[in-house]
Amino acid sequence: MSVTIKKIAKDLDLAVSTVSKALRDSHEISAETKARVFEHAAKLDYIPNPYASSLKKGRSGNIAVVLPEVADSFFSAAINGIDSVAHEKGYHTMVYLTHEDIQREQSIVREFRNGRVDGVLMSIVANNAKYEHLRELCASDVPLVFFDRVCEEIPTASVITNDFESGYIAAQHLIEKGCKYIVFLSMPGELAIIKHRQNGYQQALQDHGMQPCIIYCTDSEDENIAILDKLLTGENKPDGIIGSIEKITIPVYTVCHSRNIPIPSAIKIIAFSHLQIAALLNPPLTTIAQPAFEMGKAAATILFKTLAKKYDLKDEKIVIPSVLMMRASTHTD
Amino acid sequence: MSVTIKKIAKDLDLAVSTVSKALRDSHEISAETKARVFEHAAKLDYIPNPYASSLKKGRSGNIAVVLPEVADSFFSAAINGIDSVAHEKGYHTMVYLTHEDIQREQSIVREFRNGRVDGVLMSIVANNAKYEHLRELCASDVPLVFFDRVCEEIPTASVITNDFESGYIAAQHLIEKGCKYIVFLSMPGELAIIKHRQNGYQQALQDHGMQPCIIYCTDSEDENIAILDKLLTGENKPDGIIGSIEKITIPVYTVCHSRNIPIPSAIKIIAFSHLQIAALLNPPLTTIAQPAFEMGKAAATILFKTLAKKYDLKDEKIVIPSVLMMRASTHTD
Repeated sequence: MSVTIKKIAKDLDLAVSTVSKALRDSHEISAETKARVFEHAAKLDYIPNPYASSLKKGRSGNIAVVLPEVADSFFSAAINGIDSVAHEKGYHTMVYLTHEDIQREQSIVREFRNGRVDGVLMSIVANNAKYEHLRELCASDVPLVFFDRVCEEIPTASVITNDFESGYIAAQHLIEKGCKYIVFLSMPGELAIIKHRQNGYQQALQDHGMQPCIIYCTDSEDENIAILDKLLTGENKPDGIIGSIEKITIPVYTVCHSRNIPIPSAIKIIAFSHLQIAALLNPPLTTIAQPAFEMGKAAATILFKTLAKKYDLKDEKIVIPSVLMMRASTHTD
Repeated sequence: MSVTIKKIAKDLDLAVSTVSKALRDSHEISAETKARVFEHAAKLDYIPNPYASSLKKGRSGNIAVVLPEVADSFFSAAINGIDSVAHEKGYHTMVYLTHEDIQREQSIVREFRNGRVDGVLMSIVANNAKYEHLRELCASDVPLVFFDRVCEEIPTASVITNDFESGYIAAQHLIEKGCKYIVFLSMPGELAIIKHRQNGYQQALQDHGMQPCIIYCTDSEDENIAILDKLLTGENKPDGIIGSIEKITIPVYTVCHSRNIPIPSAIKIIAFSHLQIAALLNPPLTTIAQPAFEMGKAAATILFKTLAKKYDLKDEKIVIPSVLMMRASTHTD
């Protein structure tokens, strides 16, 4: 490569160091000189790409965060946790959204294998059992750390919360508040976090001699409203609801409000949610709040330790506990 | 460059087309062959980077979205609007967060000038009057489209909402509901959207012979709670509040709840917010809702028209109106 730089320098009658700096987009070099260098480099088919030098150094200066969505207070807080570490390390954080679409996830992840990013932090899409793209990434030189929505079949580091225990605690809280028929609002698919929460709920009900009931919601708010409307106005109404993901909260409250079902006297509600605004809802919502910022921060910290070659990612599994925030939606009258 | 590819092909006894495909990470080539090609290319100092070929084609396949934060329902919905267009065009959307920090914004934007991305969609940081990095980007070959938080001094396309008119409508709504002393909660700095909303508010008050009062909030929720606590428990209490940005909503409600100030009987509240959960707050919050998804979609549409060389960005300014959503926080008793 230096042959090309020497040639550019000779052709343009510039010092090699000047050309090199210009190609690295150094602020020491004037815009005019840079323009001449870039133009001539293009003629010689030399790629004046900031990635080129960063690749040689083995560093792009970027980490990627791959998420299903950002319209979720958990993920937006987790990004801030990740970015707080990345910024300190002099890296940029690029966020990619999969919109719960496995094809988008595959396409995004396959971009990462050749040095576009130095590391990847990821929460996988729901409702999917295809992991080949994750295996490929894991087998490449680009380190991968899962947070929250992990793929348990891929041997790499992960940062999770205590989902089984939290599901148990949520159910136990409703049982203690006198609920006799507690429904768990789940999502179809393979997502480990939902399964663990659901298993915790089932265990709690079993320990109290109660019958579990799982209702599956969808990605569509309208469909969820229809499902919940049927549930809450039908013959066999629950007196307790556990929402396993944040996006189910709005449909539950919307149906209770529109059908004049009083919370908490007719039904008590607890949701897995990091929503800061939960305390201002009518009534304030009891939540199992995941430590979103801390999980993001921990995941980024592991990644940067790996980038500094101090870590074997396979060995690393961090569990940060969630917190039950009791509010009026589960009060006893 | 083809000289190097030929050399790799010769050295490894492979066809030139095989090497070329391997370097482009084609799925037609086996992992083993790719590994051999990449390894040998590295020895020859040849950069097997997907950016290389995309740069030659003049396309990275990425657009960047630069935003202050994602923990804001406007921005998260706008990203979805942008991504809906980008996905259709076969592009990936990379989101970068500035966290309202001008140095991060400068550092992120300066990365874009050499082909890392094909185009940039941007909402600028508040509280800043330094635009040199934006001028540089605008002067480069990378097209830039502003949405929502535009920099009016940079001659490029923008997608905005009718902020002056919305500020006027918000104030007029409170005046019609009988408010006599309406405070506008503003943010310090140069942000055009806040200025326009504020000017609209001032015009409405002037048209009704009323005295405007502007209170400046900060980026800190704790500081905002302190500011609002002082305002709402002091001698001269307002009976109407306009929150100029979404993040002021939680502090206003928090102080009213903690001080037992009844909404809307003692104070009526209207906020510029795209919060879907506004209808479930206690009481439901009247909002001026920006068309976030549509604004993102429009901004991305302009950008892709430019990438197809059909557009002069300077001429383009799209205004999509906001919508007043009347709810209980501004009802008359």
